[in-house]
Amino acid sequence: MQWLNINDAGFEGAFRKIVNDRRDGDANVTRQVDTILSDVRARGDAALSELTARFDNHTLSSDTDWAISAEECKAAFDGLDADLRDALTLAATRIRTYHEAQLPEDRDYTDADGVRLGARWHPVDAAGLYVPGGRAAYPSSLLMNAIPAKVAGVKRLAVVTPTPKGVVNPLVLAAAHLAGISEIWRVGGAQAVGALAYGTERIKRVDVITGPGNAWVAEAKRQLYGVVGIDMVAGPSEILVIADGQNNPEWIAADLLSQAEHDPNAQSILITDDAGFARQVEDQVDVQSAMLATKNVAQKSWQDHGVIIQVDDIAQSIDLANDLAAEHVELAVDNPQPLFDGIRHAGSIFIGRYAPEAVGDYVAGPNHVLPTGRRARFASGLSVLDFMKRSSFIELDEAALKAIGPAAATLAHAEGLPAHAISIESRLK
Amino acid sequence: MQWLNINDAGFEGAFRKIVNDRRDGDANVTRQVDTILSDVRARGDAALSELTARFDNHTLSSDTDWAISAEECKAAFDGLDADLRDALTLAATRIRTYHEAQLPEDRDYTDADGVRLGARWHPVDAAGLYVPGGRAAYPSSLLMNAIPAKVAGVKRLAVVTPTPKGVVNPLVLAAAHLAGISEIWRVGGAQAVGALAYGTERIKRVDVITGPGNAWVAEAKRQLYGVVGIDMVAGPSEILVIADGQNNPEWIAADLLSQAEHDPNAQSILITDDAGFARQVEDQVDVQSAMLATKNVAQKSWQDHGVIIQVDDIAQSIDLANDLAAEHVELAVDNPQPLFDGIRHAGSIFIGRYAPEAVGDYVAGPNHVLPTGRRARFASGLSVLDFMKRSSFIELDEAALKAIGPAAATLAHAEGLPAHAISIESRLK
Repeated sequence: MQWLNINDAGFEGAFRKIVNDRRDGDANVTRQVDTILSDVRARGDAALSELTARFDNHTLSSDTDWAISAEECKAAFDGLDADLRDALTLAATRIRTYHEAQLPEDRDYTDADGVRLGARWHPVDAAGLYVPGGRAAYPSSLLMNAIPAKVAGVKRLAVVTPTPKGVVNPLVLAAAHLAGISEIWRVGGAQAVGALAYGTERIKRVDVITGPGNAWVAEAKRQLYGVVGIDMVAGPSEILVIADGQNNPEWIAADLLSQAEHDPNAQSILITDDAGFARQVEDQVDVQSAMLATKNVAQKSWQDHGVIIQVDDIAQSIDLANDLAAEHVELAVDNPQPLFDGIRHAGSIFIGRYAPEAVGDYVAGPNHVLPTGRRARFASGLSVLDFMKRSSFIELDEAALKAIGPAAATLAHAEGLPAHAISIESRLK
Repeated sequence: MQWLNINDAGFEGAFRKIVNDRRDGDANVTRQVDTILSDVRARGDAALSELTARFDNHTLSSDTDWAISAEECKAAFDGLDADLRDALTLAATRIRTYHEAQLPEDRDYTDADGVRLGARWHPVDAAGLYVPGGRAAYPSSLLMNAIPAKVAGVKRLAVVTPTPKGVVNPLVLAAAHLAGISEIWRVGGAQAVGALAYGTERIKRVDVITGPGNAWVAEAKRQLYGVVGIDMVAGPSEILVIADGQNNPEWIAADLLSQAEHDPNAQSILITDDAGFARQVEDQVDVQSAMLATKNVAQKSWQDHGVIIQVDDIAQSIDLANDLAAEHVELAVDNPQPLFDGIRHAGSIFIGRYAPEAVGDYVAGPNHVLPTGRRARFASGLSVLDFMKRSSFIELDEAALKAIGPAAATLAHAEGLPAHAISIESRLK
């Protein structure tokens, strides 16, 4: 953990280093993924089988080796404890409600020159959702990816998820049932992403691939961007907590640890104007992390990437937050609105002392798939729009073409594109 | 040019080949771009200078070698012929009007559980626009990229454009003046894209890079996706014209040639239910293309990539169009609305006999930067949204956390993330 004071001589350099630090990326992964994708593209299911045997220790031969049925998902859902089933259902309902309001509106109007103009939105035909297996098998991620796609109106949703040694995660299956998924393939890694993008004998090609994964999955999506649409290049998780001295240090320590426990490369940053409070939080992080089942990951993350930044005035945190462009930003102060109004770059903002980030991971409603690695400078969280696209349109009659066509022909001539000009002028002869 | 009949035995295979044909991509370009980007990242302006001397035959030493001033742009605009100035101004006005209506609305509401939820949109801080030099120096592209960024509220717009042998294009400068651009760098190619993404001593880093370019520029953007936002991976242009036999073959031939003249790899496709009409169009393409200043490019494109598809019933074109997911689709029929309603995948649709695609390139209003290479399956044309991003937000008080927090804690425990659960439970103790 690093402790910085905004008044220290070296502050600007140390802070800049944190902003520019890339906690992801590895040239080896790039090459390995390139090889895997070429193999899946060339040999389809045969390559998938070999790679799944090698990486997941799972043999793909019978149909049930390949796929999980809707009946198995329903059985998993029915078999859940009631409180877990209720929690999952509450999450699905709140996520659906929030995302339904994201549906874009078509435009269709005729302007003063008689030109009909507009734009129509359509869902993609098919979306592929990556759901991690093993340690990080999160039913919440399945809901966060599947529900926006369903709300967008996507007809076909294909889930891929690795089942190491054949083991499936019943919570993920239950979430798939709740989200109305009926196509689940037991493959993972870069090879699963390649299968979704190129298609194989068994797995039909999709148009968009979303969902979290490890470095190989993220790199596969990056390499296939353009062949398919993808949600984002995802990196390790991060949280920035802006807190005055009036918070309970236990709460803030838990918030910092809730990101740290995700990944040894996750980053938790506290900005506060109260050094005594910061020291209490630091102590609490040590006390709490020692008791966590996720202790090894959480402690490593905090040790390697944790930061406490001490400022004179909490208002100074606005500029720092905009430079950090963090995935999650908490505003644990009495009057959070001015801070909220000043923060332009953040994936998601948690306002007030009773809004721990974890609520947003599960049940608040907004998507928990958010831009990491300072990408909130230019990227947004996952939404219904990631599963839709827009066609613009133009309709002209002879009078409308007479009104605006000559200017277009003039520009076409000036750009040295005579056929462009002829296509207009021949209609106006 | 290929002629296909939907009733021929080999139709499905031949059509599938056209759909899957990739007219772009080259592994050599990938490696060269990788080398250039690493060099610019490591050595900044020194690398830029060397690469610009080598590729553009332009020496970067004095400030005026490096940049074009706002005064030069104003002088170029003032020096235009009146009809060209008026045409450019009409284009800018119509483009601005269309894009202003794309500005998204923020959401901010409190739901029945007392949870305040919403999303706020902000522009990116800085956008970089690539404007090609040399043969394909299009002022219209500058307007189509710069105006949406300005409408989005982007504070800093940095244009890069190569000036081979030091030659600048006055039309591009005039368009820059009209769009309110005051930062123009005389660099191009992958090196210019790298400078915008990483920043150099002279050129400050941007957040989003848009604009057309050759294969090196497109590959540089693809490789830097994630470091910055980009508009799309762009490939050669394409048009699909759906026309019955009641059209003037001269008009339709000009429409096909207006794409063909862009690039030898461009693709023009005609679908018609009238074989005699198709033959007339074919003849007209030959007659007109022989007279074009762009004849070499247009004839090569038509010869290598042109297609005529003969159908029995014009309604059959809907499924074909959705498979082709073309950048531009023209509907030159008497009653275009049913076709329009059926086409889900297209960059932009031109409705009726008096809507040649070229009108959309310049003055109609919608953006002419559109998805190519079947990417309209999942991508949209450039819009104001490409220069903005959304932060979701959540505000809870104690009562709201009591209402939805326990479900989140249940899910956190089930996912094996105890610190997530503690961050909620410690607040509810």
